[in-house]
Amino acid sequence: MKIGIIGAGQLGRMLALAGYPLGLRFVFVDADEDAPGAQVGRIIHGRFDDPAALAALAASVDVVTFDVENVPQAAAAAVAAKVPFYPPPEALGAGQDRCDEKRLFRSLGIPTAPFEPVDSQQALVAAAERIGLPAILKTRRLGYDGRGQKRLETPADLDGAFAALGGVPAILEGFVRFERELSLIGVRGLDGRTAFWPLAENVHVDGILRQSRAPWEDARLQSQAERHVGALLDRFDYVGVLTVEFFLADGTLLANEMAPRVHNSGHWTIEGAVTSQFENHVRAILGLPLGSTAPTGHAAMVNFIGRLPALAEALEIDGAHFHDYGKTARPHRKLGHCTVVRATQAERDAALESLLALT
Amino acid sequence: MKIGIIGAGQLGRMLALAGYPLGLRFVFVDADEDAPGAQVGRIIHGRFDDPAALAALAASVDVVTFDVENVPQAAAAAVAAKVPFYPPPEALGAGQDRCDEKRLFRSLGIPTAPFEPVDSQQALVAAAERIGLPAILKTRRLGYDGRGQKRLETPADLDGAFAALGGVPAILEGFVRFERELSLIGVRGLDGRTAFWPLAENVHVDGILRQSRAPWEDARLQSQAERHVGALLDRFDYVGVLTVEFFLADGTLLANEMAPRVHNSGHWTIEGAVTSQFENHVRAILGLPLGSTAPTGHAAMVNFIGRLPALAEALEIDGAHFHDYGKTARPHRKLGHCTVVRATQAERDAALESLLALT
Repeated sequence: MKIGIIGAGQLGRMLALAGYPLGLRFVFVDADEDAPGAQVGRIIHGRFDDPAALAALAASVDVVTFDVENVPQAAAAAVAAKVPFYPPPEALGAGQDRCDEKRLFRSLGIPTAPFEPVDSQQALVAAAERIGLPAILKTRRLGYDGRGQKRLETPADLDGAFAALGGVPAILEGFVRFERELSLIGVRGLDGRTAFWPLAENVHVDGILRQSRAPWEDARLQSQAERHVGALLDRFDYVGVLTVEFFLADGTLLANEMAPRVHNSGHWTIEGAVTSQFENHVRAILGLPLGSTAPTGHAAMVNFIGRLPALAEALEIDGAHFHDYGKTARPHRKLGHCTVVRATQAERDAALESLLALT
Repeated sequence: MKIGIIGAGQLGRMLALAGYPLGLRFVFVDADEDAPGAQVGRIIHGRFDDPAALAALAASVDVVTFDVENVPQAAAAAVAAKVPFYPPPEALGAGQDRCDEKRLFRSLGIPTAPFEPVDSQQALVAAAERIGLPAILKTRRLGYDGRGQKRLETPADLDGAFAALGGVPAILEGFVRFERELSLIGVRGLDGRTAFWPLAENVHVDGILRQSRAPWEDARLQSQAERHVGALLDRFDYVGVLTVEFFLADGTLLANEMAPRVHNSGHWTIEGAVTSQFENHVRAILGLPLGSTAPTGHAAMVNFIGRLPALAEALEIDGAHFHDYGKTARPHRKLGHCTVVRATQAERDAALESLLALT
């Protein structure tokens, strides 16, 4: 069986590396012929919305998925008309607009921070009055890793803020004084069965994920999160992996955003779970049975951003599992990560310190 | 860094899949452009001893290794003159002749079954008188997976036996009434440090490995085996992974054969050890620190020979890790394997039964 992946970033690369042992083959569409995925699979050269490239992909594979969420929904739908395409384009579209996404959460009973769409400076001022400050102004579309957002602390910060973000459709979100950031990754098979990995606790720095620890053991929060992610999976008759990032505030999970794909906060599952998010995504879109999502120990994952440590230094750390995405170094760019798995939380947290010392 | 691999079989494929996360790239030499390794890396088309192909390989990579042990030693030495080549060609050569190999074992104090070189029918009869029957007549070179050997039970079986094996240089080995077959896999780094995985217990059927269970927990045998493999590693100033297959008879390990490479009886290390044989081989030949060889649980591995089970059926088994090598099915051909890892021996043995039911 051949799987087509739109986007050949590190997520696509890790999907392919998880799928090769199952005997699968992979074809990517990407504009960069030396993209991380292209280094380990065949590539069709083209942008994510290039009709010719997508048609060539559809013609050469059994099923198509994506590793970037900014594939235009229309382009996805055109592929889906020719060949099975998972996750469903509708879910892809729902995550592309922060306002639609939050409305969707609310419609399924999933709590969120207060929010309002903002289409002008005047609307921003009105929304800030209702929601209060501090708040975050974000573009509705195409933001990731902290890009396309602006924190507003005082009324003075509102001045010119709408224009500063480009004057594009935006959303104002109330600032959540969260205790922790947690994420839950779920997967739904073609037969509708679902499975969920344990919650991961995440730390972002400057809007970019820096580290994850899992499992975050809290049975009440786990079941709360599974209910929320399960509702989303069923809403879309979803197939594949779906991630939701939450804030934990006053004992309640507030959904911040969803990603209709494997996710950085699930990289620990490669070594820290019986079946990784990557393998289960592949299993799901091929209609294969889902694998166990049970943890194999206590895992910590650290991202390498802008700079990779020396490989020899990283591998000196006992049980360090190094992942170099094969990318050119650039500031704020995710270049790789490292995971350790230990028998206890305390040992894991000590190993995490060693990983952080590499960054 | 780029690694060249002579031979693109399943071992080369799994080396590449272990090396990609470290940011490495792989180039294979193989006559089959759709060989298992070729499906996941770049291929230079040519036989293992094709001077042009090997020269092209040497020119395009930082270090060369091999996944087949019948690379002619002279061809290996020619590559080694141009680019670092591990394991050393001398170790490769030593394993290519069963008689030299057993003499080497003896010279290092490693027990073996009684053996004698056999160059004629007359020599065979004389050797059989000294060693006794039953015994096994094997070609000295190029035998694997039970090919090129003949069991001799009675004096009548001697008639024409030398000619039946092709009249090539042979070895007569006393038949060992073994209790078990065990193998030990060791690895030695560029700095001379060594590490050993736990012993695996192997079952062969018709000369082909059928299943492995590990760790085989016997501290005395483990240390006996580590002493033997350690002596071989040091003898060659070895770099990379080395495997020795033993018979256990009367509480003593008798070395049967060595393989200067990753080995089928170590496939369980992909999921059953902190660091796999494949990753540590790659680490060793690049001069990187070796990773922990500690087991992560109790593992069982079953080979799929001649026929692969349905993927969906295999993946129904809890925690089944499926490995399809991407080969065309043929009788007696190793097409894939499946590994399970469990918390206890008893659970592992129960899961092993489920795996065997797939075959």
